[in-house]
Amino acid sequence: MDKMDKTITVFDSTLRDGAQGEGINFSVSDKIAIVRCLDELGIEYIEAGNPSSNPKDLEFFEKVKNLKLVNSKLVAFGSTRRRNSDVKSDSAINALISADTPTVCIFGKSWDMQVTEVLHTTHEENINMITDTIKYLKENKKEVFFDAEHFFDGYKNNSRYALLTLNAAIKAGASAVILCDTNGACLPDEVYDIVSDVKSYLEKNCLNAVLGIHCHNDTGCAVANTLMAVKAGAQHIQGTYLGFGERCGNANLSTLIADLQLKKGYLCIPPQNISKLTKAAKFIAETANIHLEHNLPFVGKSAFAHKGGMHVDGICKTPLSFEHISPDTVGNTRSILLSEMSGRSAIATKLNYIDKSITRDSPKALSFSEKLKALEHTGYQFESAQASLELLMLKHLGRFKPFFSLEYFKVMSEQPAIKTERSCSVVVKVRVGDSIEMTAAEGDGPVHALDIAVRKALEVFYPSLKDVRLSDYKVRVLDPGAATAAYVRVLIESTDTEHHWTTVGVSTDIIDASWKALIDSIEYKLSLDLNMI
Amino acid sequence: MDKMDKTITVFDSTLRDGAQGEGINFSVSDKIAIVRCLDELGIEYIEAGNPSSNPKDLEFFEKVKNLKLVNSKLVAFGSTRRRNSDVKSDSAINALISADTPTVCIFGKSWDMQVTEVLHTTHEENINMITDTIKYLKENKKEVFFDAEHFFDGYKNNSRYALLTLNAAIKAGASAVILCDTNGACLPDEVYDIVSDVKSYLEKNCLNAVLGIHCHNDTGCAVANTLMAVKAGAQHIQGTYLGFGERCGNANLSTLIADLQLKKGYLCIPPQNISKLTKAAKFIAETANIHLEHNLPFVGKSAFAHKGGMHVDGICKTPLSFEHISPDTVGNTRSILLSEMSGRSAIATKLNYIDKSITRDSPKALSFSEKLKALEHTGYQFESAQASLELLMLKHLGRFKPFFSLEYFKVMSEQPAIKTERSCSVVVKVRVGDSIEMTAAEGDGPVHALDIAVRKALEVFYPSLKDVRLSDYKVRVLDPGAATAAYVRVLIESTDTEHHWTTVGVSTDIIDASWKALIDSIEYKLSLDLNMI
Repeated sequence: MDKMDKTITVFDSTLRDGAQGEGINFSVSDKIAIVRCLDELGIEYIEAGNPSSNPKDLEFFEKVKNLKLVNSKLVAFGSTRRRNSDVKSDSAINALISADTPTVCIFGKSWDMQVTEVLHTTHEENINMITDTIKYLKENKKEVFFDAEHFFDGYKNNSRYALLTLNAAIKAGASAVILCDTNGACLPDEVYDIVSDVKSYLEKNCLNAVLGIHCHNDTGCAVANTLMAVKAGAQHIQGTYLGFGERCGNANLSTLIADLQLKKGYLCIPPQNISKLTKAAKFIAETANIHLEHNLPFVGKSAFAHKGGMHVDGICKTPLSFEHISPDTVGNTRSILLSEMSGRSAIATKLNYIDKSITRDSPKALSFSEKLKALEHTGYQFESAQASLELLMLKHLGRFKPFFSLEYFKVMSEQPAIKTERSCSVVVKVRVGDSIEMTAAEGDGPVHALDIAVRKALEVFYPSLKDVRLSDYKVRVLDPGAATAAYVRVLIESTDTEHHWTTVGVSTDIIDASWKALIDSIEYKLSLDLNMI
Repeated sequence: MDKMDKTITVFDSTLRDGAQGEGINFSVSDKIAIVRCLDELGIEYIEAGNPSSNPKDLEFFEKVKNLKLVNSKLVAFGSTRRRNSDVKSDSAINALISADTPTVCIFGKSWDMQVTEVLHTTHEENINMITDTIKYLKENKKEVFFDAEHFFDGYKNNSRYALLTLNAAIKAGASAVILCDTNGACLPDEVYDIVSDVKSYLEKNCLNAVLGIHCHNDTGCAVANTLMAVKAGAQHIQGTYLGFGERCGNANLSTLIADLQLKKGYLCIPPQNISKLTKAAKFIAETANIHLEHNLPFVGKSAFAHKGGMHVDGICKTPLSFEHISPDTVGNTRSILLSEMSGRSAIATKLNYIDKSITRDSPKALSFSEKLKALEHTGYQFESAQASLELLMLKHLGRFKPFFSLEYFKVMSEQPAIKTERSCSVVVKVRVGDSIEMTAAEGDGPVHALDIAVRKALEVFYPSLKDVRLSDYKVRVLDPGAATAAYVRVLIESTDTEHHWTTVGVSTDIIDASWKALIDSIEYKLSLDLNMI
C-alpha cells in the first residue's frame, strides 16, 4: 500500500448527529468553540448542523462565516429534496446553499422499505430525489457527500436497490458515498463483508468516489465496525469526537483516530496532533457540559489508571506490563490510584517540590497521604484542582501564612427583586493584620455577588488581585440521592492572564462550597506573588 | 452447526475484575446481592473475588456458602503458586481451596517478557508453576479454568511459548483455557486470526479443553473482539455485566449476551431471561452506586430514545425505521424526546394527550413548537424534564389554573453562621385565593431552605404535598466561560412514592433557577392530583 492509500478522511458530526444524543445541547457559542477545537486538532470535515431545522443552526452558520479555519472544512447537512417537487424551489435545499459552506452532506434513503413506508413514495422517485438534489448542489459549486441512510439494512433486504442509490449519487456528482448503519444493528463481520461487496461493485462499474462509513453503537460495535470497514476499503470515516449521538451514540472518533493512526499506521490527523487528543476530549466534554466518561479509551481519566495491587506492581517494573501505549502519546497521564501503597511515592515527590527534606518515608508524607484520603472521602477531588492541593501542602508543611481572615459575610437574595436588576446582594467584612475592611456588592446570584465583594475588599491591601478574573465555574452534586441537602463540589478556574489555576470547595451549602473555592483562588494568587508556590 | 455448538458459557467477573475499576467498590452485602441477581439471570459462572487478596473477599466467601444458587457456579480467582516453592504450602493457593467454590480460575503468564521482567523467573519455572498449581487444585476436586494472562501480546512476541503455557494448563487438568487481552491492545481482525490459530493448534495436538476469551476495552473493541473470538471458535466468554474494570473496563456482558443471543442465535442465558437484561443492569448499577450510562447498548435509558425530528417521524410510521430490535425484547422502553429538533408530529402527539382536538397542523402545535425552540435557545432542556414540559403544554393550551402565587421570598445566608448549625434561612410569603400564608425555614444552603419553607407554606392548603420528597438535584453551568455570572440549569427530581417527575429551571442566579424548578415540581404534583396531566 502506498502512502496515499493510508490516508483516512475524518468527518466529525459532534455538532449535528452528536447534538441528537440525549442530554446534549449546544449553544451557538458552544458550537463555535468546538469548531475551533476540531480545526486545531486537524479534523478534515466538520458537519456543523442542518440550517433548515432550527433557528440556532441558522444563527450558527451566519456567525461561523467570520471564522478563519486552518485545517477543517465546514459541512452543512440536509436531506434530499421533497418528493414530487422541484429542487430549485425547495427551501431546505436552498438553505443548505445559503449556509455558505464549501461542502454539503446529503442523506437519502437506501432501504427500499423506508422509501415506501416512511417517505411514502416510489423507488424511482427516491432515485430522482437523490439525483436532482446532488446535481443542483453541484451546479451551485458545492462539494457533495452522500450519506446512504440505512445502507446496511437496505443491502440485506434488497442489495440491488441499495447499490442503485449509490450509483445515482455518484453519477450526479457526489465525491464520497457513505454507507450508514443508521440503526446500529450491524456486527463487525457483516460490515466487513458488505463493505467489501460495495467496493467491488464500485470498481466493477467504474464509479469513482471515496467510500465512507458511518456507524452507530447499538450493538456496542461502532468503533470495531468502522475499523472493519476501513479494512475492507473505506477511506472516509464519520463519527462524533466523544461518541455522542442518537440512542447509543455514534462511532467515537477520539478512539478511532488513535486506533487507526497508532495501531494500524493510517494518517487521520497530522501526526504532531495525536498528543492533543486528550485535551480536545476534555474541552469538548466541558463545552457540552457532560462528564467525560472516565473509562473512555485513550482519553478518559481512567484509561491509564492502575488500581489492582498486581497491576500497580507490574507498572512499576515495566509500563509495558499493563499499558498498551504510553499515555503521553495521546496527551494523557498515568495515574496510580491513591488508595494503593504506591500512592505515597507520588505524594512524596509532590511534597518534595516545596520541602526538599521530604522523602517517601517522612512522617509528613504519610500523614499528608492520610489527610488526602480523608478529604477525598468527603467529596474533595484534587486531580482537577491542583492549586487547592498545593495550598493544602503548604499548610501541611507549616509554610503558609494567612493573608487575611473573614470577619463575616451576609448574603441576601430576594424575589421579586426590589429596586435593582440584580437579585442578590452581599456584605463582607475582612481583616488584614489590624485593619478591617468592609464592603458590599450586588450580583447575578449569590456566588457572583460574593466574588465581587470579597475581591473589592481585599484589593485595598493586595492590588495585584485586580488582575484576577474567574474564567470557569463548575458545580457537581455529589450525592444526588440526598436532593437539595446533598454535598456539592464547586470548581473555580482563575487567571491573572499569565497563570491559570483551579481551586475546589465542598459543602452541603453551595454558597459555602463556592466561598471555599473563592478563598483558595485568592490565597493561591497571593502565594504565587510571593513565590511560595 | 448443531445445538451444542451454539451454546456459550458466560463467565461474569463484575465482582473481581470489575471491582478493579476506578470508582467501583463493593461491600460484602453488595457482592451477595449481585450474586443473587446474576444467578437469577442465568449466568453460568460468577467470579466473585480473590480470597487471599483482602479481608473483605475472605468474609464474602464465608458468607456466600449459605446462599443457594439455582443457575450459577461461584468461582474463586487467584494466581499460580509462587516461584521456586512448594504449591502445597502456598497460602494463597490454600485460600483458594478453602473458599469452597466448585470452580477456581487461575491466572498465569503467557508472555515470555512478563515471566522474566515481572515474575523474575525462568520460562521453564513459569510452566512448572502453571502445572503444579492446576494439578494440586484438581487433586482437591476443583473444576479449574486457566486465564492465560497477556496471551495476545505473548503470542505476537513468542507464539511458541504462549502456546506451551496452554498446553501445560490443559495437560495438568484445566477444563477451559481463556485467552486474555490483558492490556486491551487488540483489534478485531487480529483477535480473529490468533484465536483461529489457537483453535487449530489445540485440535492438531488433541488438547481437549474449552477455548475462552477475556477482553479489555482499551481500543474500544472489547465487545467486538469477543464476538470475533466466538466466530473463530471460542465457546466461553469472560466480561463484566456493565463493562466495569481496570482502566477502560472489560467486555460488557449485557451487550454481548444480547448480541450473541438475539443477533447470532447463540444460547448464553435461558431465552426467557433475555427480557431481564435491563432490570439486571439497573440493579447492578444501583448496587455499585454509579449512574447507569444512559447510552449503553440494549439496557441504557437512551438505547431506544429518539430525538432528531426525522427519527421521531420515522418511528411513528414504523419502529423498524430507527430501532434494530424491539425495546421490550430486553425489557427496555422506547422514549420520544422533545427538543428543538423535534418535528411537529412528535409535539402534536404529546399535545394530543391533553387536548384530543390537536393535530399535526393545528396552529397551537406550531406555536408550541416555536415556544419550545425559543426556550431551548435560552438554555432550557426538556428531554430530561418531562414534567416541566407537560406543565408548559397545559399552560399553552389554556388548561392550567394557578394553584398559588408568590408574594415574595427572602434568602439570608451568612458566615460564620450565628446561633444555628444551618447557614441559611428563608422567609416566604404565598397567596392562595384570598388567603396569605407566611413562614420561614432554615436549611443546608439556600435551595434546601427554600424547598422546606415553600412546601411548609403550601401544605396548609394542599396537604398532599406532605408526601412529596425531592429525590435528585442537579446543577449544570451552561456557559462556564462567564464564570460565576453564567447561566445555570437546575433539574429537580421529585417523588410521592407512586410517581416520579423531573422539572427544570434556568437563570443566571442559582437560587432563582432552583426556585423555578421547585415551583414546577409542586404545580406538577397538584395538577396530577386533579388528573389534569
